[in-house]
This record gives sequence, C-alpha cells and structure tokens, in this order.
Amino acid sequence: MSETSSRPLGVAMIGYAFMGRAHSQAWRTVAAAFEVPAVARRVIVGRDETAVAEAARRLDWEEHATDWRAVLERDDIDIVDICTPGFLHAEIAIAALEAGKHVLCEKPLANDTAEAEAMVRAAEAATARGQIAALGFTYRRVPALALARQFVEAGKLGTIRQAKAAYLQDWLVDEEAPMNWRLRKETAGSGALGDIASHAIDQVQHLTGQRATSVRGRLATMVPQRPGADGPEPVTVDDAAWATLELDGGAIASVEVSRLATGAKNRLTVELFGTRGALRFDLENPNELWFLDATLPVAEQGFTRVLVTEPEHPYLEAWWPQGHVLGWENAFTHQARDLLLAIDGSAGFSPDFADGLALQRVLDAIIESDAADGASIAL
Amino acid sequence: MSETSSRPLGVAMIGYAFMGRAHSQAWRTVAAAFEVPAVARRVIVGRDETAVAEAARRLDWEEHATDWRAVLERDDIDIVDICTPGFLHAEIAIAALEAGKHVLCEKPLANDTAEAEAMVRAAEAATARGQIAALGFTYRRVPALALARQFVEAGKLGTIRQAKAAYLQDWLVDEEAPMNWRLRKETAGSGALGDIASHAIDQVQHLTGQRATSVRGRLATMVPQRPGADGPEPVTVDDAAWATLELDGGAIASVEVSRLATGAKNRLTVELFGTRGALRFDLENPNELWFLDATLPVAEQGFTRVLVTEPEHPYLEAWWPQGHVLGWENAFTHQARDLLLAIDGSAGFSPDFADGLALQRVLDAIIESDAADGASIAL
Amino acid sequence: MSETSSRPLGVAMIGYAFMGRAHSQAWRTVAAAFEVPAVARRVIVGRDETAVAEAARRLDWEEHATDWRAVLERDDIDIVDICTPGFLHAEIAIAALEAGKHVLCEKPLANDTAEAEAMVRAAEAATARGQIAALGFTYRRVPALALARQFVEAGKLGTIRQAKAAYLQDWLVDEEAPMNWRLRKETAGSGALGDIASHAIDQVQHLTGQRATSVRGRLATMVPQRPGADGPEPVTVDDAAWATLELDGGAIASVEVSRLATGAKNRLTVELFGTRGALRFDLENPNELWFLDATLPVAEQGFTRVLVTEPEHPYLEAWWPQGHVLGWENAFTHQARDLLLAIDGSAGFSPDFADGLALQRVLDAIIESDAADGASIAL
Amino acid sequence: MSETSSRPLGVAMIGYAFMGRAHSQAWRTVAAAFEVPAVARRVIVGRDETAVAEAARRLDWEEHATDWRAVLERDDIDIVDICTPGFLHAEIAIAALEAGKHVLCEKPLANDTAEAEAMVRAAEAATARGQIAALGFTYRRVPALALARQFVEAGKLGTIRQAKAAYLQDWLVDEEAPMNWRLRKETAGSGALGDIASHAIDQVQHLTGQRATSVRGRLATMVPQRPGADGPEPVTVDDAAWATLELDGGAIASVEVSRLATGAKNRLTVELFGTRGALRFDLENPNELWFLDATLPVAEQGFTRVLVTEPEHPYLEAWWPQGHVLGWENAFTHQARDLLLAIDGSAGFSPDFADGLALQRVLDAIIESDAADGASIAL
Repeated sequence: MSETSSRPLGVAMIGYAFMGRAHSQAWRTVAAAFEVPAVARRVIVGRDETAVAEAARRLDWEEHATDWRAVLERDDIDIVDICTPGFLHAEIAIAALEAGKHVLCEKPLANDTAEAEAMVRAAEAATARGQIAALGFTYRRVPALALARQFVEAGKLGTIRQAKAAYLQDWLVDEEAPMNWRLRKETAGSGALGDIASHAIDQVQHLTGQRATSVRGRLATMVPQRPGADGPEPVTVDDAAWATLELDGGAIASVEVSRLATGAKNRLTVELFGTRGALRFDLENPNELWFLDATLPVAEQGFTRVLVTEPEHPYLEAWWPQGHVLGWENAFTHQARDLLLAIDGSAGFSPDFADGLALQRVLDAIIESDAADGASIAL
Repeated sequence: MSETSSRPLGVAMIGYAFMGRAHSQAWRTVAAAFEVPAVARRVIVGRDETAVAEAARRLDWEEHATDWRAVLERDDIDIVDICTPGFLHAEIAIAALEAGKHVLCEKPLANDTAEAEAMVRAAEAATARGQIAALGFTYRRVPALALARQFVEAGKLGTIRQAKAAYLQDWLVDEEAPMNWRLRKETAGSGALGDIASHAIDQVQHLTGQRATSVRGRLATMVPQRPGADGPEPVTVDDAAWATLELDGGAIASVEVSRLATGAKNRLTVELFGTRGALRFDLENPNELWFLDATLPVAEQGFTRVLVTEPEHPYLEAWWPQGHVLGWENAFTHQARDLLLAIDGSAGFSPDFADGLALQRVLDAIIESDAADGASIAL
Repeated sequence: MSETSSRPLGVAMIGYAFMGRAHSQAWRTVAAAFEVPAVARRVIVGRDETAVAEAARRLDWEEHATDWRAVLERDDIDIVDICTPGFLHAEIAIAALEAGKHVLCEKPLANDTAEAEAMVRAAEAATARGQIAALGFTYRRVPALALARQFVEAGKLGTIRQAKAAYLQDWLVDEEAPMNWRLRKETAGSGALGDIASHAIDQVQHLTGQRATSVRGRLATMVPQRPGADGPEPVTVDDAAWATLELDGGAIASVEVSRLATGAKNRLTVELFGTRGALRFDLENPNELWFLDATLPVAEQGFTRVLVTEPEHPYLEAWWPQGHVLGWENAFTHQARDLLLAIDGSAGFSPDFADGLALQRVLDAIIESDAADGASIAL
Repeated sequence: MSETSSRPLGVAMIGYAFMGRAHSQAWRTVAAAFEVPAVARRVIVGRDETAVAEAARRLDWEEHATDWRAVLERDDIDIVDICTPGFLHAEIAIAALEAGKHVLCEKPLANDTAEAEAMVRAAEAATARGQIAALGFTYRRVPALALARQFVEAGKLGTIRQAKAAYLQDWLVDEEAPMNWRLRKETAGSGALGDIASHAIDQVQHLTGQRATSVRGRLATMVPQRPGADGPEPVTVDDAAWATLELDGGAIASVEVSRLATGAKNRLTVELFGTRGALRFDLENPNELWFLDATLPVAEQGFTRVLVTEPEHPYLEAWWPQGHVLGWENAFTHQARDLLLAIDGSAGFSPDFADGLALQRVLDAIIESDAADGASIAL
C-alpha cells in the first residue's frame, strides 16, 4: 500500500462512460462535502485516445492514459476505480489488487461465478495487506436506504417476514431499439437480471440483514431479436426476470425486474413487512422513506413519508438545509467518502468482493432455476 | 314535538335535486349501518308534481307532495329535511320549527344575515321546546375530518398558529357554460363564497376550535357574463374568492376558492400547522388524513397517511373491514345518524343555526372587506 | 324463469355477514341510482333464527327465513343471491338454478374444481332456459377498473407484455389473531390464494383480455398455528402466495398476495405494461386510474391520475357531480344493476360460472406447482 | 471587460456560507456537465481569514482573500459571484460592475428599493459595455420549472386566469430557535417575504409571463421575540405573509409564505390554472411537473406526473439516463452554464437586475398594503 501521509490519495479511473461520469462527479465533490483525506484525480484510462483525452478535459482529471497496466505501476496511484463493462472487471481488479492498490469496482462484481471467485481470492490476499477491495452497490448509500437499514437494525420493523422488490425500466419497450453490449450474453453475462435485479436483491439482503438460502426464478426475453449492425441480431440475455427467495431469517422475498415496463424510468422499489412495522422506498423519489410503525395506536397508524434531508439523517449533515433534496448522483459522493474513510482506517467498507460473489451465486441460482423449470435451487 | 316512542320518526324532505338524492341515500341507509331510532321516509316535496312523483318512486319515499306547508301540518312528520336552494331556507325552516318539527337545513343557512338571524330566533325558541335545529355542514362528518377534530382536541397539534384552506372546482372554466341559479345574486346570495368558501371556513373554525375575529377578503368574477335563455346574461356573483382570517386563538387562516381552477374537481383542502404537529386533508381522497407528529425524533418525522377505515376511527365501526373505503355520500348517513341520536336525546347536534349565522357573518364580512378595498372587517 | 312483467323481481339473499351487508346495500340502492327493473328485497336467509331476524330488520328485508330450500320453492323469488362461505356455494347455487332462479354467487365460485364443474353444468342448463348465473367478482365494476378495461379494449395500451398484480392485507400480522373458518382448508379451500389472489388473477385476465396458459406458484404459511377454541390449532391454508402466469397473448403476469403485509389494508394493485401505454390501479384509492400514453411526445409523458368521477366514466352518470368520489360499496350496486339489466335481457353478464371454473383451475394449478417445487403447470 | 479568448474565465466569489457552497459546487461541475467556455475558480472572498482559507481548501478555490475591493482590481477576474447577505449586495455589485466585471448576484437583489434602483443604473451602464448583470433566482433553472415555462409559452395552458403559490418552511416553529441576521430588519430587509415570497412571486410572474399591476398584502410575526445573545430580542421582520396579486394578463395570483408551517421543509408550490390546461409543482419533489391537458377527452383527463429526467427536457441532456433524478443543487450548475453562455454571447441571461428591482417593488407594495390595512397598492 502506498504511503499516503504526505500527499493526496491518487485515483486512477478506468472507464469514462455513464459510470465514469458519475464517479468523476463524486471524486470532484467528496472533499467539499465531507471531511476526508485529500484526494487527487490523477488519471483517467480508456482505450480510445481521443475520447479519453476529451473525457479527461471535461471531467477534470490531471491526465489520461490508454494502458491501464502501465497505470497500475505508478507510485502516485493509490486507488483504482473500475467503471468498465463487467466482463473486464476481473482482469483489472485482480491486477490492481496485486499491484497493491485499493480497488473500487462497479457492480456487478463479474459476469460469472468463476471470475468472481478469483476476484475474492485476490481481495482476501490484498485485504490481509491492508488494502480495501470495495464493490459499488452505490444505492446502499442513498440516504433514504441507509436510513431504512438503520431502522431495521434498531428493531423498528420487528421480525421481517416478507419483502417485495422490483426494478422496472422501460428503455427497451421499443422493438426497434438497437442491439448493444448489454444485450449480448458474452459481454453482459445476463440482462435485466445482472444489471438491475442485482440491485434489488442486494437491497433485500442488505436491508433485511438476511441472506438467501434458496431461490426459484423465471427469465424471459420478450423481444427476441433487435436491429444490429448487420441486420436482425438475437438478444441473448433476459429482458425481464422474476424470483422468490427464501431468506435465512425466515422471510420470503419476491423480486421482479424488467426493461420493458412502460412508464417506469428507474423504478427500484423495495417494501419490507415486519411484525412491528413496514418500510417502502422508490428510487424515482429517492429522498423519501415511507415508514409504518405498527406499535402506534391503530387510529394513528399509516405510512409516514420521511423526507430524508435532515442533518440527523445519514450523510445529510454534509449537504444543504432541510428540504433541499439530493439527486441520484450524490450517493456516489457518499461512496467515495466511505471508501476514503475506510482507507484512512476509520471505518470498514461494505459491500466487499465476497458480498459480490455471494450475490453472483444468487443470480446464477435464478438462472439455474429457470433452466430447471422453476425448481428451487439451494445456496 | 311529536310523540315518537311507538312509531318510526317520520321524515319529510323538501327538494329532490342533487342534495335531495344524497339525503335520500342517507335516510335509506342509516338504520342498516347504525343503531338508531326507527325512521320512515314519509314524503318528498317539490313544486313540479310530475318530477317529484318520479323522485319519490326512484328515491323510495312513501309519498310525494307539492305543498310543503300542508306537509308541516301532518302529525306523522317529525323531521323536516330542507334541501332547497338557499333563498327558500328561511321561510321553510322557520315554519317547520314553529310547527314543532325537528329541522335539518342544508348549508348555507340563508342567503343573507337578516334571514339567518330570524332563523336563529326561531331555532332558539324551538330548542327550548326540545326540538333540534340542525345545519348540514356534512363534511364535518367525513371520518377523516372528524378524526382531525379529535386529534386537535387531544392536543396533538399543540397551539395552532396557521391554517390554509382551499376549495377548488373547475365546472365554470368553459366560458360557454350557461347561466343558472347559482350564478345570480338574487337566488344564490353569493357565488363560490357562499357555496364552497362556507365549507372551507367552517372546517377552519371547527377543526381549530377558533373563531374568526376579523377578516380581509377579495372577490372576483373572472367570466363576467354567460349564455342565458335570452342571450348573454351578467354573472352577478363571484366565481373566485380569497380571504385571510384572524382567529381568536391567535392563528391566521387563509382561504381560497374558485370555480375556474382547471383540473380541480372537488378539491377541498385543509392544512393546520401547530406547535406540536400538523394535519392535511383533501376531499378528493377523503379516506386519508395526513398527520405529522412534531414531537417524534426528527429522523422519523413526516406526514403519516392515516387510511381512515379502521373500527377505531369515527363512524367506521358501522361499515366495512379496514381498507374498504367510503365515498362522498357516506357522510350524509353519518349526519342522519347524529341527528337521530340527537332527537333521541343521547347526544347534541352541531353545527346548529347559530353556527350558521356566525358563518354567514364571516361571509358578509368578506364581501364588505372586498367592497372596502381589502380593509379588515371585525366580527 | 318467473314471470316478471307485472311485479318487481323478488330477491332472496342467503347469508347476512360482511357480504350480505354489502349486497343488501346494493339492493336497497340500485333503483335509486339506475334505471332498472323494479326489485323487491323479499327474504334474507340464515341458519340462526335470532340473528337473521335482526339482520332482516337492520338491512330492510321484508322477511327472514332459516331454510333456504323452502325459499327456493317460492314463486315470488326470482333471484337468489348467495353470500355464504364458499363451501356452501355449490349446493345452494345448483339447487337454485334447478329451481329456475337467477343466481348471483359470491366469489370464489367454489372451494374446489369438482364442485365448480358441477356448478358450470347446472349453469349451462339454466342458461339454456334463459336464466342468468352470475359470479360476483365485484371489482370488475369498480369504475376505475371498468375504465381500465375500456382503455385496453380501445387499444390504448397496444400489446400488453407484462402485468404485475398484488393483493396485500395485514389482518393476520398478529400471531395471536385467532383461528377462524378462513384459516381452515376444509371450509375455505385455500387461504390468501382463493380469497384474494382470485381477485388479482381475475383482474389480470379480465383487464388484459388474455388467459393463463401455464403457471408457476409458491405458497407459504408464515404463522403455522394460531389460538383456537381449545388451544393452539394448525393453520391449514396459505397466508401468502406468489405466482407467475404465462398468458395466451404472450404476456407474463406476476401475482403476489399476503395477509401479513404490515400496513397494507386492502391493497389490490394492478399494473399493465403495453407497447403503447401503461395502467396502474390501487384499491385503497379506488377512484383513481393512472394511465400513461406512450404515444405522446416524450417530454409530456407520464402517468396521468384520472379521477374517475366524470359522467363520461363507467357507471358514474348515475351518481354525484364530478369529484364527489365513490366508496368500496358502490361497485356492488353496479353489479346489482348489471344483473337486473341482464335479466331484463338488455345486456349479458360477465363473469359467469364458466369464468369462475377457469379461475379455479388457475388457483389449483398454482397449488399443484407449489407442490411440485415450482414446476410449470399447463392449463 | 476582460479578454477571455486565450484563458479561462476567472471567477471571484464573495461569501462562503450556504449559498457560497452551492455556487462552488456549480462552478466545479459546470464544465463537466455542459459545453461551456473554460472557467477557473480563482478566489473566494470573506471577512474572516481563517474561515475563508478553510473554505478555499474545502470548496477547491485557487486562492482566498479578505478584501473584495482588491479582488475587483485583478485582471484575471472576469466574473464576480455575490453570495453575501442582501445588505451587502448593492455596494459590491455596483463596484464590480464599475470595475468591468460580469456579476452574478444572489437574490434578493437588495434589501430596499433605493439600493435596487442604484444597482439597476449600474447594470444598465455595464450592459451597454457588454457586461452581464445576472440575478440568481436559481429556481427558474430547476428543469421542471423550466419545462413549465415552455408549456405556458407553447400555449398548453391557454389563458391563465388563476395562480396559487406558496413557500412553506418550518425552521422557526420552535419559539426557542435563536435570533439571527435573517430575523432583523436592518440586515434582512424583511423576513419570509423577501427570503421566500420573492421566489414564489418570481415564479408566478415568470411562469405566467404576466406582471403584477396591484397587490394586497398581509404580514405577521407570530413569534415576536426570540433568544438573543443578551436575552430576549424582538423579531423585527415577518415570519409569515399572504398576498393577492392582480396580473397584467388578467389573472389573479395568491401567495402564502411561512417559516412556521410545521412539517413543510422547503415546500415551494406553484399551481397555474388556464383555459386549456393546468400545472402543479412542488420543490420537495423537484423532478416532477404535473400537467393537465384540458383539451383531451374528459374521460382521459387528469394531472400527469411528468418525471423531468428525459433528454428532451431542459438541461437534462447533460446529465444521467432517464429516471436518474437531479437534486436541489443542480439548478445552480444550470445557472452557471447559462451565465457562461451569456458571457460567451450565445444567449441572453434572465433574470437581470431590472427584474430584481421590479420584484422588489412588488415586495415593497405588499409591505405598504399591510401597513394600509390591506388596501390595494398599484405598481
């Protein structure tokens, strides 16, 4: 691990598309919002020299580079932030960890379990050397969801018996929407399952504090081919998926995801039903957490819309006065903060690569269940 | 007062239009839903023989009649339910009270203060004889509003400092909507003010438990003429109104009403802001009361949507299981119940004619303020 | 079939609990709200003489009786309205149909498929004689859901690819809530599945106009025993259930139901996602239909809250001015209207017993799938 | 005006509290999100050396300074961004304009009309020299409000007859909340009126495109004294205000603001009612615009929730995929973008100082009306 006492922590970011822009915003903002170790945006890495140079300029990185392996050898790089498509995660993350760098890897951890297992082995070794191997399930750091976790931990829901999660989008409603890497199995691993069910399942397990012990799943590809560069091309991943999960705390969770849910823009919803209370969340209104306290007198019960913008709420002391809401992007700043504090030794970081592997196994089990006509698959 | 021990209470209803239909539904339903003295729908009265005969058949009244004065002489009539336009209220109500009948009079009590004062004198004399003179501000008996009143009385809001009420409709948005009696001063007294601001102001005073001590008001007639039978006819009442009220408990209330509020169908909204809590209500979602408890820990505060369908809620024990919502009409059944119980001596009835007069004076003061360029008018 | 030209249609209602009260309200109200053939509430039938006599008085029926077989022999009875628990449906309905009566049978049609098949045979014979055999999936007559069906039929959703329905209640959250007939397999057939999933599945099939061709299902009994008269007693039905349905139009539907969904009071929700639009409905706000028109310019798209209270909306011309909302009970009046019009020959009635049988087969298939570890069961 | 072709535009920001932090975030972010001229955060200025040095570090400015007059003399400063309390605006802005700088001045323009007039004179002279004098009513650049303005301009509302705006907060509910500069007339000018009614009135005028021609107003100070450094100190500004405005297009607008509206966190709401449509907005859900199209068939009408996150929406092409919502702070980035583009000559900037003066006159008229017992004050 690099010596960080006398200079800022240097970050190298691999990838500069959607996630790269979001992570850049976080790295630019984190030290203004939070008390964290100093950080420097050293280098942004991509394959296309022209494009990555432009990205460096726009996103305000000191340098750009096209060879991520060379970047890993630099002494001024302490953190490697991996924002590439999933099929590149394993190779880069393992090399970065072996080079002694802290790693932040976007979800999903990998496209299959074998890769994920190799990554976990590398992370275990690195962690033993004091490095951090962090996984980017950023929604855990949406304040309302962090508050939800606090409520569950404080016992406000009692025993959770049922969970209901969905992640609905509609960007594939149009049958003429063209092919891209997210619709091919070899680059994306899976479709809606890996891309968005992964978030829904991570929230279910994280919020309840319960792990899946068995699953039943169904996948569907409703639009089986789409326009490619050379004419119609088969879609080789799912565009919708359904699952039920048995959790080790006795709860049953349902998960439904789709990229053809007309009118749903980015609708990750989670509902938890417990013996003492209930919670609801919708990512399209991310500043609200709906909480029902079933221990109140019946005549006063109902879902309370908590506007999660008070200084008493997670991460909010760093931002604006009450009622001045945050956007989708702020959770990335919270993630950068928590990573910097973890490197600084003042806190741990969750989720880690092992969490990512465990989640990958749940996704694989859903695929296996679907292939087995819906049979339960134990984890 | 009639002897009621050995036979059902006999009701005569004057008027059979919108309000007559709603009251009929209540009289037909009340004994099924609630434990009340037996009641008989004896006679429905109107000027048009054919139409009232048809109304009697449809609305299930035993008889119909065209001469309300003759009906008042019948011994089998105990209750006179006045559903006519406001300009007929005074004459009928006073005669009915003098004939020894209980009276339920639709709001507004009268079209002007002089009439209202005469009605109050008649009611005082009748009340001394044991009769009930009830005023039909039915919305007080919407369960969510009745619950709101309970919350205020229980101190859940602390000291109420500010109230904000509105009643917005849009049935006059179209400039070609034709003239009718509600748009002429001689029949309607006023426009949106008497028709709907009366509800908003009644709720403000009733819910807060505070009375207006002075008002400032503004009236407007945005569409000054409309198609009449003989060509364009001037609209002689307001179609929108605004007022602020100083209340005797120190609060200030705002009221805004309109018949040209595009998209508002029957949107009576009331918000109360107190030192310990707040309340919100919207008549377009009448089964919901939104309550904020400002004494909770800040991280848990927010408006709670209480779905007012529990047996613990006002009037609800008589209806369906929880979550099976009521409609607009049910409050009329609650009103009939409360009137029957009042007649039976087991409870009082509020509002009474004196409340109607007090409200009329507030409305008059708003008109006076508008005429005086917005000057405060004391009550 | 009875001769009905010269006298009102006579109704006999069997059962006087929750459903009996709701149906009574409908029979009392229908002729006031709608133009229908005259109808008389002749007799209410129950096993407990004292209780049924009291019900007759409260609910305003002419007579009461304890022997439903004797009632079927009366010439002045034209309609038999069956509001008993499901295990009595078959016997009564078949006898009533054989006695030449029109029958309205509450859902579920029967507790098992064999009974349902016998009922369908009886209904087919009766229908050939001109009788009506109607099934009470009353929610089809909630105006917002009737409007939803109109929108789908008019093509406003295009091809429906995905449906998402849930029916969540919370009356069994408390582990100490006592046993009752709804929790025993021998009286109730199934638990949440038959009671509420039946509604959700009926809506999915009715609204989409597509029928299930195969299902995968999961059942759970989260609280396995409850206090009985003689100590703890096993709960022998499901208290939550999940299913996915393949529909013959190519859509996939998910259904989730629970009686332990803390904070959900009567939350039947349905969402439909089509190539041209989407719909959402929630029974806790039954006057609202949310519609998204995906053919509008993108900048104007979104879910529109249609307040279903306009005279242009189904059933609404009979009720109150716009914005004056209906309650849960009004749909029963619509059902009574539609039945009377069907008897009068001016319209058909849907759903019928065959629909009930088809639905029963879907429910059975879900049970079978659960028993087969989630395997697909073809219909 | 400085020569900007060969180097970034240099910004000096005066003030580093709440507004300074929000503006810094915008200056750091603008070039990443939008194509704009290069910009450099040269110097942040404040009176307290230690605090401003720390702010420079945290907010990532190149330098800090304590003497704003000296900063105005620097050639590398092109833009002066004024984030101080209002009583300092006039002096700094006039000096900066006279020094040839572009100025962005936070709202309100000034604490009284005399100051505002002097500022407008300075701005007029500067504008003639090619400088920009921009006023920071940032909410005009919340995408949903910018979209609202587009809808009105496109005629989607027809003639707007009625507007209803409120800005409700609750940070002064507690009577023990201490005195600060915002509660003293000499530093703040007015209370809720200048601070938040200014926003509401700016929106009403901007969105409708109509200007106030006369007002009636009422002010109240509900908590007349608060804890000061030396014991109780009188509150010399309003904590709530109400007004009605006649607009030059024939509409009437109501405005209500409060700092004691329990449960309202930052609730700026605007509703517009026109002959062809209506709009609603709530700053606590700033990504939503609710639009009703009154030209649709009645059965389909209702308020549509437009989630303003599509690339077709104002400013959104620069941010994230659809459904990934923005926060309160992003509007400041939009403001910085528009200012840079205005300096670059590719667009104008609105509002300007003259708009601020016009608004100040409306605020003054409300105060005058209140002092005249609610009399109408012409503008």
